[in-house]
Amino acid sequence: MHQHSEGASERGRTAHQFFLDLQDRITDALATLDGRSSFRSDPWDRPEGGGGRTRIIEDGAVFEKGGVAVSAVHGELSEAFAKELPGPGRRFFATGISLVIHPRSPHVPTVHANFRYLEKGDALGQIAWFGGGADLTPWILYEEDAVHFHQTWKRACDLHPEVADYRAYKKWCDEYFMIQHRHERRGIGGIFFDYLGAGEGAKAMVTRSGGGQGPESRSQDLSKVFAFVKDAGGAFLEAYLPVADRRKNTPGTPEERDWQLRRRSRYVEFNLVYDRGTIFGLKTNGRIESILMSLPNMVSWKYDDQPQPGTYQERLVQVLKTPRDWLG
Amino acid sequence: MHQHSEGASERGRTAHQFFLDLQDRITDALATLDGRSSFRSDPWDRPEGGGGRTRIIEDGAVFEKGGVAVSAVHGELSEAFAKELPGPGRRFFATGISLVIHPRSPHVPTVHANFRYLEKGDALGQIAWFGGGADLTPWILYEEDAVHFHQTWKRACDLHPEVADYRAYKKWCDEYFMIQHRHERRGIGGIFFDYLGAGEGAKAMVTRSGGGQGPESRSQDLSKVFAFVKDAGGAFLEAYLPVADRRKNTPGTPEERDWQLRRRSRYVEFNLVYDRGTIFGLKTNGRIESILMSLPNMVSWKYDDQPQPGTYQERLVQVLKTPRDWLG
Repeated sequence: MHQHSEGASERGRTAHQFFLDLQDRITDALATLDGRSSFRSDPWDRPEGGGGRTRIIEDGAVFEKGGVAVSAVHGELSEAFAKELPGPGRRFFATGISLVIHPRSPHVPTVHANFRYLEKGDALGQIAWFGGGADLTPWILYEEDAVHFHQTWKRACDLHPEVADYRAYKKWCDEYFMIQHRHERRGIGGIFFDYLGAGEGAKAMVTRSGGGQGPESRSQDLSKVFAFVKDAGGAFLEAYLPVADRRKNTPGTPEERDWQLRRRSRYVEFNLVYDRGTIFGLKTNGRIESILMSLPNMVSWKYDDQPQPGTYQERLVQVLKTPRDWLG
Repeated sequence: MHQHSEGASERGRTAHQFFLDLQDRITDALATLDGRSSFRSDPWDRPEGGGGRTRIIEDGAVFEKGGVAVSAVHGELSEAFAKELPGPGRRFFATGISLVIHPRSPHVPTVHANFRYLEKGDALGQIAWFGGGADLTPWILYEEDAVHFHQTWKRACDLHPEVADYRAYKKWCDEYFMIQHRHERRGIGGIFFDYLGAGEGAKAMVTRSGGGQGPESRSQDLSKVFAFVKDAGGAFLEAYLPVADRRKNTPGTPEERDWQLRRRSRYVEFNLVYDRGTIFGLKTNGRIESILMSLPNMVSWKYDDQPQPGTYQERLVQVLKTPRDWLG
């Protein structure tokens, strides 16, 4: 896989290697927890430069469908897209890890995480930054799960006070994963950040992408940012595994399963209508299967699907409409 | 419901009444064919002006989920959207009928139709036009069904040679219902047309929306256009009912059902990523439930879901990749 980052800067190659190692750790741990299915690897090359290693789990005991993908791609951005990113020029190198896991039981939340590194400019590495985040989508709300998930990300941020700010990244996450037409978020959030290390040039981008305190008041030292991203990437298993582990033996009633399938439709709506990465990938000849691995196996849409007052369904939707401060 | 078109021009009110009557005819006929479920009515008002009458069928013997909606709305377009439509000014009146029917059996194709009338301009009715179309989405291809569907639309067009051109509208339909990222269409097409009657001002719009011979060589006389739209609307039941009727007693094997659910995911991808009406509605505070009634009840996404060579699945996908001339 290393050939995918040949020609990148040394930092680019190191980031790529970190994402590959993280992918190994995550897929090993998830397969162990699942106990029945393991991940199959689907490596691919990008004709215009680079490629990836997509790993898929299907029909597991715990995980109904999931993907953990690493890619490293390079080339020339379209003029229109180049303008939407910090820095001059159109050459780019991008590497990252992206994962979405859809468990079978409605008691186990769906989870997403993504960490990425980008370089842009006519001299590669002229401007470079990290972005990423993770968010949790429960179908039946267990407050202790939400608290644990957020606590883990706060700890990862707190280790790097010069770089990361949990409060700002939590807010950014709540803003990013907004399903505008439903007036609700896709889940109970987590953290989201972008353009860390890109310096002053990134201020406008942060404002435009709608959120957070942004990196302007934070260190723009890329090695400090990378150290944070390493700890954040490493925190994923800590944030999610205990939650999946303590819920995996609760199978859910048929009614709860039906609720899960109906709520998954909102996940699809977010990804296909709003998610910047998904839409960019679909409209620029990205690798479709790696992009759409985020979509659940079984999904259901009902007409005018509103929860009844006083039910666990309504309690969940309330939290999606009005994000809570999980750490008091 | 007539109050929704109060204040519109006389033609606007007449078009609205035609769509309401057509809705009655269509929902009566579909409920009769279904035999178990009927349509329930969900009337709504639009705070900014107008409203609609959405009718929904769920859990029928033949129809798993479907909606037939009529609306008549008026007000001011956003500056950005006003520019994308022919004619000056921002005031508008729009009325139309829109339907999507998702049958239960994978042998009965999903169908969509939409006919609409718009007025725009500071003096209402300053510029006005009709648009519409219908397309069929089989999961298992029966050539005789595709031929019958297209033949019906050709007959409706041929009754109005000054206005309508089946060949051009068939091509326009194949271009419109393209799922770019899959390099395939959502179905075997039908007809699609827009800006009929809007005159010279609509030429640029037709080119931009990518298709067909366009109305420029056709009559721009709105009463002739309306006469065509009446016959096209009236042709819907003729185009679809015989197809649904002859397949409705073929339930489909579990494998065929699975294929249907997986193919429905492409329908969702088209509607959420490309359909102009859907995206416009979602991003401009449209009535969500009426917009998303087009989405199927049960849907499935698999990773890297390609049909095996030599199967009925592959035969269908071939036709979606390379549209056929159904009328020889």
